[in-house]
Amino acid sequence: MHYSIVIYILGMVLRVEAALLLLPFVTGLIYREPQAWAFLLVAIITTAVSLLLTAKKPAKYVFYAREAIVSTSLAWIIISVFGALPFVINGDIPSFTDALFETISGFTTTGSSILYNVEALSHASLFWRSFTHWVGGMGVIVFMIAIIPMTGGYNAQLMRAESPGPTFGKLVPKVKESAKILYLIYFGMTLLQIVLLLVCRMPVFDTLCMAFGTAGTGGFGIRNDSTASYTIAQQAVLTVFMILFGINFNAYYYLLGRDKRQAFRMEEVRAYLGIILVSILMITVDIRGAFDSLFLAFHHAAFQVSTIITTTGFSTVDFDQWPSLSKGILLLLMFIGACAGSTGGGIKVSRVVLMARMVKQQIKQYIHPKSVSVVKMDGKTVDHETVRSVSIYLVLYVFLFILSMFLLTLDPSKDLLTDFTAVAATFNNIGPGLALVGPTRNFAELTALSKYVLMFDMLAGRLELYPMVMLFVPVVWKKN
Amino acid sequence: MHYSIVIYILGMVLRVEAALLLLPFVTGLIYREPQAWAFLLVAIITTAVSLLLTAKKPAKYVFYAREAIVSTSLAWIIISVFGALPFVINGDIPSFTDALFETISGFTTTGSSILYNVEALSHASLFWRSFTHWVGGMGVIVFMIAIIPMTGGYNAQLMRAESPGPTFGKLVPKVKESAKILYLIYFGMTLLQIVLLLVCRMPVFDTLCMAFGTAGTGGFGIRNDSTASYTIAQQAVLTVFMILFGINFNAYYYLLGRDKRQAFRMEEVRAYLGIILVSILMITVDIRGAFDSLFLAFHHAAFQVSTIITTTGFSTVDFDQWPSLSKGILLLLMFIGACAGSTGGGIKVSRVVLMARMVKQQIKQYIHPKSVSVVKMDGKTVDHETVRSVSIYLVLYVFLFILSMFLLTLDPSKDLLTDFTAVAATFNNIGPGLALVGPTRNFAELTALSKYVLMFDMLAGRLELYPMVMLFVPVVWKKN
Repeated sequence: MHYSIVIYILGMVLRVEAALLLLPFVTGLIYREPQAWAFLLVAIITTAVSLLLTAKKPAKYVFYAREAIVSTSLAWIIISVFGALPFVINGDIPSFTDALFETISGFTTTGSSILYNVEALSHASLFWRSFTHWVGGMGVIVFMIAIIPMTGGYNAQLMRAESPGPTFGKLVPKVKESAKILYLIYFGMTLLQIVLLLVCRMPVFDTLCMAFGTAGTGGFGIRNDSTASYTIAQQAVLTVFMILFGINFNAYYYLLGRDKRQAFRMEEVRAYLGIILVSILMITVDIRGAFDSLFLAFHHAAFQVSTIITTTGFSTVDFDQWPSLSKGILLLLMFIGACAGSTGGGIKVSRVVLMARMVKQQIKQYIHPKSVSVVKMDGKTVDHETVRSVSIYLVLYVFLFILSMFLLTLDPSKDLLTDFTAVAATFNNIGPGLALVGPTRNFAELTALSKYVLMFDMLAGRLELYPMVMLFVPVVWKKN
Repeated sequence: MHYSIVIYILGMVLRVEAALLLLPFVTGLIYREPQAWAFLLVAIITTAVSLLLTAKKPAKYVFYAREAIVSTSLAWIIISVFGALPFVINGDIPSFTDALFETISGFTTTGSSILYNVEALSHASLFWRSFTHWVGGMGVIVFMIAIIPMTGGYNAQLMRAESPGPTFGKLVPKVKESAKILYLIYFGMTLLQIVLLLVCRMPVFDTLCMAFGTAGTGGFGIRNDSTASYTIAQQAVLTVFMILFGINFNAYYYLLGRDKRQAFRMEEVRAYLGIILVSILMITVDIRGAFDSLFLAFHHAAFQVSTIITTTGFSTVDFDQWPSLSKGILLLLMFIGACAGSTGGGIKVSRVVLMARMVKQQIKQYIHPKSVSVVKMDGKTVDHETVRSVSIYLVLYVFLFILSMFLLTLDPSKDLLTDFTAVAATFNNIGPGLALVGPTRNFAELTALSKYVLMFDMLAGRLELYPMVMLFVPVVWKKN
């Protein structure tokens, strides 16, 4: 491991964060809140640390996968630690563990909360809390690559370590350009959502925070009832944009380019939209009795399906009370997750599609042992390496899931259902679980150990397992 | 698909079952029970059907994997249907669905029950119920191969379809001989256990039934309190034999041969024994406060660990009341299961070991992308085919698990924890779950749909997924 380059990258990431911290500071000034100054203070501290870390230019730009992976996971941890400080300093979340939980939940776009009364928070803190979703959605390292000029050929490796999905499709040969394009699309779509929400007469501050939460598929709300008190039109805008932000961003790039049909040919996107449509229709039929009109049933079905498959985690109604078929469908969607290359979490639609095809191919091979069959996706043969890594991904996923549940059972104050859904909700970056961590309760009551396990799960879920697991592999830390 | 050969094999399997049905008949005669005659009646019916099915010798002995797989799954279904009839006819279990559930639970060595008061059953029925465990443990098709002379080279394929584990190790070149050796070891060990239980002064009838339940790692008891009212010595014998029957039978074959050290070199067996030892020690420390002596704590820890890792499912105490660390460990063991090539269920120790190594290798490759590393087991490189099929096995396992849970949620009368543990307990062939299907409750209250889903899970778990899944693949049924 080349420590100097890792330290340098961490310093650069902190510099980006210091700049971002000025936004909640300004927000707080507008609302004349004393809590705002904590953000300026932390911005200064972060800058100082950043300068310290980048004071020594790395000796050589030797950069292997190891360095990229460790830089990524450490970057996410360090921005969360510094990002949590303002909450502690201004008193909005006095406990550091809780503040860290909330910040990691923000950056990883999980949306699980330890707060009972979000309306008691200052506007500055609320803004920062929602803004972490926006930054984490597309990735803080992608952001850094897009805006900070850095030499050395390690951009691609860094971006690969942070991007969600089984394969990493570069949009254009230059990684820096890819990062810029991604952020431009992301920024444009967020802006469009803000405008539409304003048209639907949502207050300006709500508009910004809800757009951040939607774009990052995060799920932090700024009202105690999440999104229940917004109008039907406002909720409908959220529904549409949740679905849009769960789509593989390559599709948008194709739509901007010459061959627009490429976007519609992406099998993952078609499967994703198909699953959403079927789920909404089934749930609408299942819950129609509980609502005044079929339209309202459809509206709430669409909202819940979108919020769960994209792993956003907003809620309009307490779906824990819905009939079991609907709950069963939502449970399935939790694990499927959104598209690879989107801001959503979960196992990802492309992995699920690939795994289903692998099973199908294995069954075929079972019947005709001598036949050679391959797994295809988007018309192309998927290479053995990807097939293997996708299946081992699931193995690791199940291992970490069971290990987390095991660690959570050590805290005897909750039942097994709480343990199960707490892990499912954080590991898939969804947000609320069921039972003790359900839509109407939250994570505050857990022990510190459980909270740290779930923080690990949120980070592991967002960074697709490996970067966080690597931190526990001794050989990674060996100095070259 | 060549239907004639499949029909012929089903007929042969039924002939074996007809003979086995005479044992409970004789038992019932000894106890002068009217219920005994149902077994004779069904034996006669089964023989008649068998003669009908085998009347026409198959035209050609063309036998591919397809035929082997379908024969296996259909054989297990058909013996369960005929095996359930005596319970319905003699009135011990009047509902056919319940009788079928109990019989499938028996043959698959699951041990989940729909009975509240087993002591009300006739001795004939109790004997048959426990005896299905013994037959299902080593496999009814293996039994058929061992005793019925059949020509044609399809024994190997049939045995492979029925044997548990990722790879199929023939003991000797001739499959028929392998089957015979396996059953001889199995028979010998069962006999030894019966003798030891008799030495510990267990009543003769109990001895037979408990030995059947242990040997097949099934778990049906014949007392309402399962095994709680047996003496410590009797429970200790059960503990030791549960562990022994969870070991890969190849190890015993090696022990009988010249190179005895081969048995101790088997990595799976060492991992299995290591997991058991560590689990017992950890639980003993965790529960020591709840028992009068450290020895008693050790005794009950050892019993519970053995009964769960081997997926037997006996119980001496209500472990639902144990501290959460112990419950967490037991939960982990449920999924690991016993060794491949034993009578136990679960994912199997060898698969877990292989999967852990695959993850380790993948991490290594992540760090050194250009290195070529291989997965090893028992000192030999595991071929790519096995690595792939093991990981796809887990994919299919997770798919079926989630699908089953989804189907169970359609019945709203139970909570999600019940759904989860009901699937875990049946799919891993353990027996009791937690909550509504916990050690002190049972499966009787579920809806018929839930029961049939769980029956499928028991069969899929015992036959290692594929044979049961194949029944739903249309191409399998296409006539050649």
